[in-house]
Parts: sequence; structure tokens; C-alpha cells
Amino acid sequence: MMTKQFFASVLVSVLAALASAQQNDGADYADALNAIPAAASLADHHKLLASEPHIAGTPGDWRTIERLIKLFTSFGLDVTRHDIWVYLASPVEAQVQVLPAGTAPIDLPLIEPPIASDPDTAHPDLTFGWNGYSGSGDVTAELVYANYGRLEDFQKLEELGVSCQGKIVIARYGGNFRGYKAKFAQAAGAIGLIIYTDPADSGYVRGIPWPEGGYANEHSIQRGSIGTLAYRGDPLTPFIPAEENATRLDPESVALPKIPVQPLGWAAAHEILSRMSGPRVPDEWQGGLPIAYRLEGGADLRVRVRVEQQRKIVKTANVIAEVRGQTYPDEVIVVGCHHDAWCHGASDPLAGLICLVESARSVGALARDGWKPDRTIRFAAWAAEEQGIIGSTEYVEAFAEELTRGAVAYINLDMAAMGPNFRAAGAPSLVQVITAAARSVSQARQPDRTVFEAWAARRDDQPALISLGSLGGGSDHVGFSGHLCIPSAGLSAGGAAGSAYHSNYDTLAWYRKTVGDDYEPALMITRMTNAVIARLAGASLLPLDPSRYALDVQRHLDHIASFIADTGAWGEQRPRAIRRVELAAELFRLHAEPVMLKLAEAELDPKRTAQINRRLILIERAWCDAGFETGRSWYRSGYAAPDESSGYAPWMLPALRHAVALGDPDLLEERADAYERFFARAGVLMGEIEQLLP
Amino acid sequence: MMTKQFFASVLVSVLAALASAQQNDGADYADALNAIPAAASLADHHKLLASEPHIAGTPGDWRTIERLIKLFTSFGLDVTRHDIWVYLASPVEAQVQVLPAGTAPIDLPLIEPPIASDPDTAHPDLTFGWNGYSGSGDVTAELVYANYGRLEDFQKLEELGVSCQGKIVIARYGGNFRGYKAKFAQAAGAIGLIIYTDPADSGYVRGIPWPEGGYANEHSIQRGSIGTLAYRGDPLTPFIPAEENATRLDPESVALPKIPVQPLGWAAAHEILSRMSGPRVPDEWQGGLPIAYRLEGGADLRVRVRVEQQRKIVKTANVIAEVRGQTYPDEVIVVGCHHDAWCHGASDPLAGLICLVESARSVGALARDGWKPDRTIRFAAWAAEEQGIIGSTEYVEAFAEELTRGAVAYINLDMAAMGPNFRAAGAPSLVQVITAAARSVSQARQPDRTVFEAWAARRDDQPALISLGSLGGGSDHVGFSGHLCIPSAGLSAGGAAGSAYHSNYDTLAWYRKTVGDDYEPALMITRMTNAVIARLAGASLLPLDPSRYALDVQRHLDHIASFIADTGAWGEQRPRAIRRVELAAELFRLHAEPVMLKLAEAELDPKRTAQINRRLILIERAWCDAGFETGRSWYRSGYAAPDESSGYAPWMLPALRHAVALGDPDLLEERADAYERFFARAGVLMGEIEQLLP
Repeated sequence: MMTKQFFASVLVSVLAALASAQQNDGADYADALNAIPAAASLADHHKLLASEPHIAGTPGDWRTIERLIKLFTSFGLDVTRHDIWVYLASPVEAQVQVLPAGTAPIDLPLIEPPIASDPDTAHPDLTFGWNGYSGSGDVTAELVYANYGRLEDFQKLEELGVSCQGKIVIARYGGNFRGYKAKFAQAAGAIGLIIYTDPADSGYVRGIPWPEGGYANEHSIQRGSIGTLAYRGDPLTPFIPAEENATRLDPESVALPKIPVQPLGWAAAHEILSRMSGPRVPDEWQGGLPIAYRLEGGADLRVRVRVEQQRKIVKTANVIAEVRGQTYPDEVIVVGCHHDAWCHGASDPLAGLICLVESARSVGALARDGWKPDRTIRFAAWAAEEQGIIGSTEYVEAFAEELTRGAVAYINLDMAAMGPNFRAAGAPSLVQVITAAARSVSQARQPDRTVFEAWAARRDDQPALISLGSLGGGSDHVGFSGHLCIPSAGLSAGGAAGSAYHSNYDTLAWYRKTVGDDYEPALMITRMTNAVIARLAGASLLPLDPSRYALDVQRHLDHIASFIADTGAWGEQRPRAIRRVELAAELFRLHAEPVMLKLAEAELDPKRTAQINRRLILIERAWCDAGFETGRSWYRSGYAAPDESSGYAPWMLPALRHAVALGDPDLLEERADAYERFFARAGVLMGEIEQLLP
Repeated sequence: MMTKQFFASVLVSVLAALASAQQNDGADYADALNAIPAAASLADHHKLLASEPHIAGTPGDWRTIERLIKLFTSFGLDVTRHDIWVYLASPVEAQVQVLPAGTAPIDLPLIEPPIASDPDTAHPDLTFGWNGYSGSGDVTAELVYANYGRLEDFQKLEELGVSCQGKIVIARYGGNFRGYKAKFAQAAGAIGLIIYTDPADSGYVRGIPWPEGGYANEHSIQRGSIGTLAYRGDPLTPFIPAEENATRLDPESVALPKIPVQPLGWAAAHEILSRMSGPRVPDEWQGGLPIAYRLEGGADLRVRVRVEQQRKIVKTANVIAEVRGQTYPDEVIVVGCHHDAWCHGASDPLAGLICLVESARSVGALARDGWKPDRTIRFAAWAAEEQGIIGSTEYVEAFAEELTRGAVAYINLDMAAMGPNFRAAGAPSLVQVITAAARSVSQARQPDRTVFEAWAARRDDQPALISLGSLGGGSDHVGFSGHLCIPSAGLSAGGAAGSAYHSNYDTLAWYRKTVGDDYEPALMITRMTNAVIARLAGASLLPLDPSRYALDVQRHLDHIASFIADTGAWGEQRPRAIRRVELAAELFRLHAEPVMLKLAEAELDPKRTAQINRRLILIERAWCDAGFETGRSWYRSGYAAPDESSGYAPWMLPALRHAVALGDPDLLEERADAYERFFARAGVLMGEIEQLLP
């Protein structure tokens, strides 16, 4: 194996060559776009869009949709409203009572009290805390504490001889997607579930609570959906668009939760947890409340959980706004962020959506002046992400053919501007364009430094070899990357001291005090978005570098191999299947890197450029075409999928990872074939690119 | 370098050879002794000695001394009372008030309330919480929180721009010896100090609090001395015995604390910490109370600390009981544990002292039947350990000559039986006799397993290469090991769920509920003590293996080298000084190991045996004779000393470690000379031993 240093030097050469090439690289277009964004404008978008709660399908949602249509139209973009009819949950009633033996029932608070200094927190459309798609029911039982409610936590309970059968489980937020807490609790025989925010994970243990600081306070409740279907989007229309007259599944046949599930803040949870009397939890299960945590509540403590929710088909809409490309109109760069929120949504999603809106304003303004991109730039404000990544998925399912043919990349901006520290996650083939963009944009609040310099300084990897993070399953990129194999990246920036995640305190006042009222992070994200999409839409040769898959695949294989080694079940040796994929990746890299080097230096006519661009796109699509089996057919990409039992976290190389999760070495061997096919296909396309060089 | 596996195989051979040797190895005497100890007897000692509080110098202390004299006498041992006149602190009054701006002062509780189920906790002789040698004074000031009050914590405060000048510091227990908290606070300009028990370190975060569980509850207060002199023992008589008419230092010239220092439980500390309003602490400084911890209290919060203590010369006594050796009466094995306590002391010190008493009963019983050891076995119940390891130090200073000549080993039993999990710390030369003992004693509560099997199973090192832990500065071994270079070991066993350390809840009821009323751990420790001292006192050839120093020195050098590397200040290379000592150790090992192997197999006449034994002892003393400079002349051993700025933790190879702490590479180079001298001297003695072999 060659050293990391060697790779670094090769990559530096590639970058230098790319920079010196004669071809148009889109940098001029990027610079022109980036003269436009302004903090005041971002603040205005924020004020407008965070003015009221706007849960998907509610009147507030529709007013938000209209506001977005009006904004995009005013910027001069072509706007379409993409209506969808989707199966959503809404809260009707809920109650949680503690029933200590021999004393009166205690009703626990289910909604955040308004904060006097922030009138938004008294808005009449704010809801009590609820978990979308909870079962409806009224249950009373003894308690079991299940830590984070992860697969391993329920396994630990079983190992400790603690049965959840007929009990109400109480688990804390964190460690996985909340839906899996419900899935595992229900599977373990629990008849109800309480999910609460523990101060060790989000509250005073982390920092000063709101409203003095930015962290969750004792009343903060995290809302959120708990669906865990094997596909994303509308629960009743997997694989097909959720049109008004679509053929729908019978709701009874869909595996939505059956038990009532209720979220609480920690003041309420303390009323329960402090009354438990069973044996102490394992050390790592101890949270931040001032008590010794117990595994069981004991016979003298019962809790009542009553949840009523309605599930019905509701109409909402994605808002799509684009400027059509003047040279390659069918090649499309999509920038997306959802518009729905659990409340006012000042941070989730608006910390990202305002950047998208401001980027659209930039593209619109230049287009009005006559400077249009070569490729189509499409802005998408997605509907109903919060209930299950629904709007983007239905869009992807509706326009699968067009997107598969023409989509160059997808950039996601959910909650993007939450602090000054830039980061990016996504397809390795996008690392080059994102780092190039980061070298051209100045760092928030440090005007004499580039985003790249600040980003690289916070990381371990060598600047020339910077890797993107791995995209998990928590936002609107999944349809693009996981279902259609369109290279996708999430751009974001963190570092603010706090979080109001999914609580009624996620207001403009919270954002401006905690993240800042200078809108510097949002300005940085807007400029990064402009700089990335301008290169993707304006460069004659597409700035996609598929040779980078080889290095990242190697990293993911190492991770899988060490995961296998840690289990100890498969013996000492690195499995042959892993080794086969390693060799295939290495062969591809040895082949592809010189081609990418030559490509960067070549002078190409437009026809050859178009032929090469097509092949660069086809290499990406090969992740969908090589026949990867991942156990969940909606997730077609062999590169990345959400963790099957966690949700937020990613499974990289999911066809292999799934075989490992099943503990099946033969299946792993079989699954390795598709990775060999991917690299063979990518190698053939790379050979064709080489042939097209002068 | 040869591999660990190779060393392991050599050691296995040594052990096998030792086992097969014809010489008397003391095992028969050990087995005979170990037929005597009984759980019921241990429970009786415990009930007797834990019947009242017995702080050094109080009437309870004197009654305890009389009880011990009576016990030892009844066993048939020769008992002497070794009176000492030492400078002790005693509590007079104390008060802590929170003074929030604009509201009435709040008086904080300074003593644990009695617990109804445990009448001992209502004993009239129990004191309010106090820190021995606190300054007397009455101060009122704003607050600074200093985490654990370690050197690095005060450095961090300075770095953060937080001044302690004129403030009262509040720090939590843990991380160092409490005396250093006071020393550093005073040096930083603080005018008072509050030390409290944080639930993250000792309370509900760790386990269920007393009286339901064994952990500290909101009222538990850790008492304890805060002296940090550069020597141990009586503050006014360093280096000399504290006889009635000794020439004493002027108390004013001794660096005892000047600021008032007061310990609190966390319910009281919460009243202070929850009212602080300054910036949040660094993440690692957050404790377990349900608040975001702050660096400063702010101008609106003042606290008053009023402490009055008396310091005066007080008479107390060590109780010494021995059975004189019938063959080598001048060669002495000393077993020690202090008898004074901050309260009833059921765990500290009695969890160890009862084992010592029961071991004395065993030795006495056999001696009465006519089976006396070859060497003298001396049991020592030390006075006034809690105020500064005073009784044992004064004994060592009084009998330095005799002990230097004849002491074979010192075994310490402070708080020894606190659970079923055996461990040992001490001189590498004792590892062989301790592991041999552990192979002969059955594990507490697992009669079909030896102590050795259970001990080895809990450790990483290979059974044949098991290492002892390093002895720190927290108990009565320091005079023996650090001042006189007598090979010392602490035997103990932990694993009970909780601690009542230095609180008024350290009663028989606490011990019997938390550690157990079966006295199995105490029985195991008694038998381990018997098995070790029987071998040391009964074997014709002393079971000391100085060749083991080489391996442990290598380990400590690695630690020092990586410590130097971590600071980054001295460049990349392993310092030459370290390498020199490594080579000296390695040379000694290559020389010594074959000699020890031959020795184990040799048939020796009594005269040669005695000559060899003398040299084995002289190798130990070489740690005092090679001229090690450690910056604190009372600590003479070049092998181990207490950490200069932590107290409990050890500094291994302190002459080197001190040069590193001073950041002085030239001094390190100079200090390496003494280690070369040690190994040269040890090598010469080893050569003489080789010459004495037939």
C-alpha cells in the first residue's frame, strides 16, 4: 500500500492541475453570485418564515408555502408547487399521570410554558409535546427504564432479566432515531413508551439552559416522528408518487407504531424516575438527574399514558423554483431544505431554508441581469420532512426518470446555519468541489481566513485529503442519494452553545440569542452553497471526482472489518469478502487517479466534454445499478444507507454491513460480488473517459 | 529487547524452581496459621473497636488503645505502648452561610443528621465536618469554583482569566489529596476554601445512596486532614521521634494552611452552586448536581466561612505487639494499620485493623502451642494516621536504626477488607511472595477458587508476570518504604457498592449492609496476611526477588518518557537520561535473573543462607543509599514517593519524575546517575550472592 503522504501529494497535483486548466471551472460565476448575499436579507427571510408554527398540512404550513412561492417568484425564478397527498399524524389529546401507591395521581406537564421575554412561545398554534405516528391508547402499568432505548439497551435488559412485557418503558432521547425506541419497546412487549430529554444529553450538564443560555431547560420537549418503515416518504405510497389518486396501501397493513408514545421534558420525567425503587442501572445508563437511576419502578409505582392521535391523508406541497440552464438545461443541480417544522422552526429547518432562499435570490438576481448558469439550478423547499422525509421522497419518486438521467448533484441545507464551524458530509466524489468552494469563501466572523482554513484546522486529516462526513438517514438527501444514487452532500455549520431542537422554544428569539443576530453563519452557508452550485452548474467539465470513492470505501471496509473483529464471532482473520472489495477498490483507484489527473489538464472540445460528463454521472449511478441487496429494497445505493436499527447513523457499504448485522459470513461473501461489479463498471466508464481524452 | 512472553517463561521457571526447592519456604507455617481465623472472631473485633468515635488524642482514642493492648495481650503477644506527643488539630466551631444579595443569610448544615435505623449515627462524640489543620478565621467573599482544586485546575482558571484573589474557592473532593486543594487555593490568593462531595464522584451518579444503598448521600461529609508538608508525621518533629521532650519546631515556621477550609455535603453545596451566575465551566468540570456549573458566583452572591480550630501537642500511642523470632529474632516482619478514625471508623481503618488483630490472634495461638516463627513478627496499630500518617512515621523515626538493620518487609492493611476483590500494591521484590500466598488462600465467597485465580482473571497482565500496583502517599507504609527503603506492600480488597469515607455514617451498620456481614473479605485478607508473613518469617531463604525491580523500572521509565513526549516540550527523542537508566536496569536484570534461578534450586547451609539474606536486604536499602535527590529530603527512596502536587498518587522513580516536573532536562540527566549507582550497587550485591552459591 502506498502512504497517505503519497496520496496527498497526488491530490495536491490534481487540485493544482484543475486550478490551472483552461476550461471554465465556474469560479467566476461563483464570485458573481457571492457578491449578492446579505445578512439583512437573511434576517428578513428568517423573520418572515419563523413568524408562526407550521406543521405539515396545517394552515400555517400553507401560509408558509405561499410565502415561499411569493419569495421565489419575486426573485425571478420559475416556481412550481408540487402538491402531494400524504398520510400524516396529528395530535388530539394526551395525558401522563404518575400513580404512586397510596397517594393522589400526579398529572405531568406536556407542554412548555410560555417565556415572558419571548411572545412567540405563547402562540396559540403551538402544540403539546407529541410523537408523530404514536399509537392511540390509554395504558397504566409499572415501569422499566431502558436508557436510550437502543437495540443494545433492550438486549441488556433481557440479559439482566428485566422484562418489558406489559410494562411502560421510559427511555431518554439520544443514541438513535426515536422511532427505534418505540419499535424495540413494542417488540419487547411494552404497552406504552415515554421518551424524555435527559439533562445529561441536552440540558444543564451540557450548558446553561434557556432562556439564560441556549440549552434545553426542564420544560423543553422534543417532538418528532416515530415511523421506522423500510422506506422513506408517505407511508401509504412506497416507490410511487403520492398523487391525489394514487393506489394506496391499507393503513392497517403498514407497520406504524401501535403503542402510545409520549415525549416529556425532564422536570416531568424526574417526577417518574425519582419514584422508581428497583435495582440500580448499569453505570453508563445513569443520566443527569439528581437521583440514582433504577431499572424498574417496582410494584408501588404505576404510570398512566394516554395518547390520542389522528392519522389521515393530508394535502401539502413542495415548492420548486429554478433557473433553467442555458447550455445543458437537462443537467440539474438540486438544492433542498424542508419547510415544515414542529413549531416556529427558527432553527429546524429555517437555519438552512433561509440560506437556500438567499442563494435563490442570488441566482435569480444574476439571471435577471442575463448571467444564467450553463446547467439548471433547482431550489426545492420540501414538505413534511418532519413526519418521515415525505416531500422530498415523493418528489424523487415522481421525477425519478428525469432525475436519474440529468441530476448532477443534490445539496441539502437542513438546519444548516447553527454556528460558525463549517462541516460537510456526503459523496466522496463531491469533496473536490466542496473544498474548492471552501477555499473561496471567507469564514464566518473571521474575515481574514477562508472556510477551508478554519475547517481543516478543526480536523485530523491532511488538508489535501480532507474527507466528507458520512450522511446518515435524518434528512431530505436520502431519496436522492439512497434511492436514486445522485451524489449528495449536506452543508452545515455548528458550534452554537445550545439546542432548542423540536421544542416550542425554537423561535427567532432563541436563534438570535444563541446562534447570533449577525447572521454570519447563514451568510457563510449561503456563500458556500453558491460557490458549490456555481461550480457544479457553471464548469464545462463536471467537478465530480469518482476516484475518491476508492479511498473512502477502504476506510469503510476497515470499519466493517474492525466491527467484525470486535464481535470476535468470525475468527481472527480479515474476511476474504472484505479483501476482495479492497482489491477491487485499489485497482479502480490505480486506474482512475491518472485519468483524473490527465482530465484536469486536458483541453477538450464541447462534444467530448459532454461525453465525459455523461460518464462521470454514470459512474455515480452505478451505485444503484450494480445490484446491491441491502435488506430494504427502497435503499438502492450500495454506498450508503441509514443504519437499520438506529436511523440517524449511516451504514456505509450497506450491502456488506447488513450481512454483518445478520451475522452471516456466506452472505457477506455473496454481497461482495456487487461491489466488485460496481468497481468493474466504474473502471469501464473510466476507461471510456480515458479514450475520449485528446 | 526480549519479549514479554520470554520473561513470562523465565518467571514460570523461577516459580517452579522455588516451589521444588528443598528449603523451608514457610508454607507449612502459613497453613497452620490459616487454620485459626474465623468470621465470628472478626465480627467480634469489629463490634468492639467500632463501638465509639475515636479521633486521635480523644478519650475514645485512649479507650481504643486500651482495648487493643488488652486484645493483643490476651493472644499471648508481647505488647508495648509507644507513646508520642504530636501536634494535632481539633475542631472548635464552624459556620458557613450563603449571603445572596437582598435576602436573608442561609446557614448551611455542617453535620450529618442521625439516621433512625442506625443509633451509632447519634453518638454524642461525633463531630461536625472539619478539615484537620484548617486555618482559623471568619471570611466573607464572592466565589470561584475550581473543579477538583488540582494544580491543572488552578492553571486553567488563570488561563480563563478567573482570579481567586480575595475570593472563597469552592472545590469538589476527588482528583488529589485534599490538602493540595487548600495549598493551591491559598497560593492563588483565595481567603477561604469549601470542599464538598459531588454526587458525580461519590453519590447518586455512582450508585444508590445510604441508607438504601452504600453511596454518599446529600448529607455525607468527608472529613480529613489538609497538611501538605514536605515530610510526614508530626509537623513539629520532622526526622526525629516525637518524644515528650523532643526539640520542636516553632509552629509559626511550619507551612500549615492559613486560610479557613470547611468540608460540606452536596445538599449544602447545592445551596451555593445553584446560586452562582457567572460563565459556564469547561465541560469536564461539570459535576452531578442538577445545575449548569459556573466558574464564578458573581457580585450578587457572597459566602461566609468561619472556622475555629485548636492546634496543640497531644499525647497518643502506637500499640506494638510481637512474637519474637526463634532463629533470627533481629529480622522483623512488620504488619501495620492505624487505629485512629474520624468517627466510628468501621471501614477506615477498622476494615483493615480487624484483619491485623485476627492475624495477631493466629500468630499468638500457634506461639502458645510452641510453634514460633523463625523471624520476629510485629503487629503495629498506628496512632494519628488521619492527621498526617503520624504514629507510623514517629515509630520509624524512633527506631530507624533497628528497622534499617533488620526489617525484612512492611505489610499495610489500612481499610483492607472493603469487598471481595483482592489487590496488592508495593515493592516489585514482594510480588513473588504475595502471588505464592494468593495461590494458597481461597477467594472470598468463592471457596472453589484461589485468590490468585480471581485476582489474575481481573487483570490484563499474564498470570506469571502479575505486577503489584504502585503505592501512593496515602497511608502508613510511607515511612517504611519512602523514608527507610523497607520493601512494603499494601494488601486490600474492594468491590463493595459504596463508600462512607470519613463521614459520620462510617458505622458498623453501614459496613455490614454494604460490604457484608459474612466477614468473608476480612477473612480472606487475614489469611492473605498470614500467608505472606508466614513465608517472610518462616522461609529459610528470604522470599525477596529484587530482580523484579528491573521490569517495573522499565515500565515506570516508559511512563515518564511518554509523559515527557506528551508535553512536547523536550522534542521527539527519548531523553538520553531515560535510556541510560533503561540500560542499567536491563543489565541488572540479565545478571540477576539467572542468579535468582540458581538460588531457588540451591541447597544452602544456614550460614550461607544468612549471608545471602543479608544481601537481599541490602539491595532493598540501596534505594536509600544511592543518593537520590527528590526535592524533599525526607523521602529518601529513589523508587517511589507520593506525587508532589497530588498526594495520593505515586511518583515512581521520583528523582527523575521531579526533574521532569521542574521541566529541567539537565537535572534529569544528573538525576539518572543515582539510578545507575543503584543498579551498580544491586549488581555487586547480586554478584556476591552468586559467589555464595555452592
